[in-house]
Amino acid sequence: MITGAWLQEIKWSSDGLVPVIVQEADSRQVLMFAWMNREALALTQDEGYAVFWSRSRKKLWRKGEQSGHRQKLVEIRLDCDEDVLLMSVKQIGGIACHTGRQHCFYRKLQGGKWIEVESVLKDPKLIYGQKS
Amino acid sequence: MITGAWLQEIKWSSDGLVPVIVQEADSRQVLMFAWMNREALALTQDEGYAVFWSRSRKKLWRKGEQSGHRQKLVEIRLDCDEDVLLMSVKQIGGIACHTGRQHCFYRKLQGGKWIEVESVLKDPKLIYGQKS
Repeated sequence: MITGAWLQEIKWSSDGLVPVIVQEADSRQVLMFAWMNREALALTQDEGYAVFWSRSRKKLWRKGEQSGHRQKLVEIRLDCDEDVLLMSVKQIGGIACHTGRQHCFYRKLQGGKWIEVESVLKDPKLIYGQKS
Repeated sequence: MITGAWLQEIKWSSDGLVPVIVQEADSRQVLMFAWMNREALALTQDEGYAVFWSRSRKKLWRKGEQSGHRQKLVEIRLDCDEDVLLMSVKQIGGIACHTGRQHCFYRKLQGGKWIEVESVLKDPKLIYGQKS
């Protein structure tokens, strides 16, 4: 399915990537921002759960593979310039951020400073450190 | 203000840019995705209306300078990796997209095709073409 016509309509970057905004389907909270290559997007569509391309690790990244905090696909949208995706998901476990918060945008600009305004729901050590 | 400490905390790209997700404050609809450099972000904060960096035109872009569809700043958030911004705004005129739609994400992946699912609220010719 990596050759699907819908994949060709996306204007991929010179690195073969597209930015993806991930939003919680019900609350519309923006959870995170990541990147996909063709394979990640095709897998997301086929498997029904978010798969990204990790630019730092240079490999496919099945969101939640370690934490269990998978993102069940609800809908994928493409923007007017065909170079950005908006993906609605159901966030399993209610935690999207690797810091243990609901989402990644937990710092708010206030009085000229970035202030943390979202609570840690689960200690990252418990999310990633222990396997039983 | 371009030297403000809060600006230094952002991990700017090698091009000196940061991606910005723009969201309508009340409905939480994601309106568009754009880029800012330090000056654009400082101006956004100072002026209270969105200013972006146009990568195609290589210049500052005061959103709505031609259309009147300015974006009044409500809040700016920074993500866990300090390299993506989420900005909440009040969209003046209710139209964020240059196609005359409320937002840029008007194509939905459905049955293996991108289907347009949002109406044009105002003909772009009327938005951009006529000055009286």
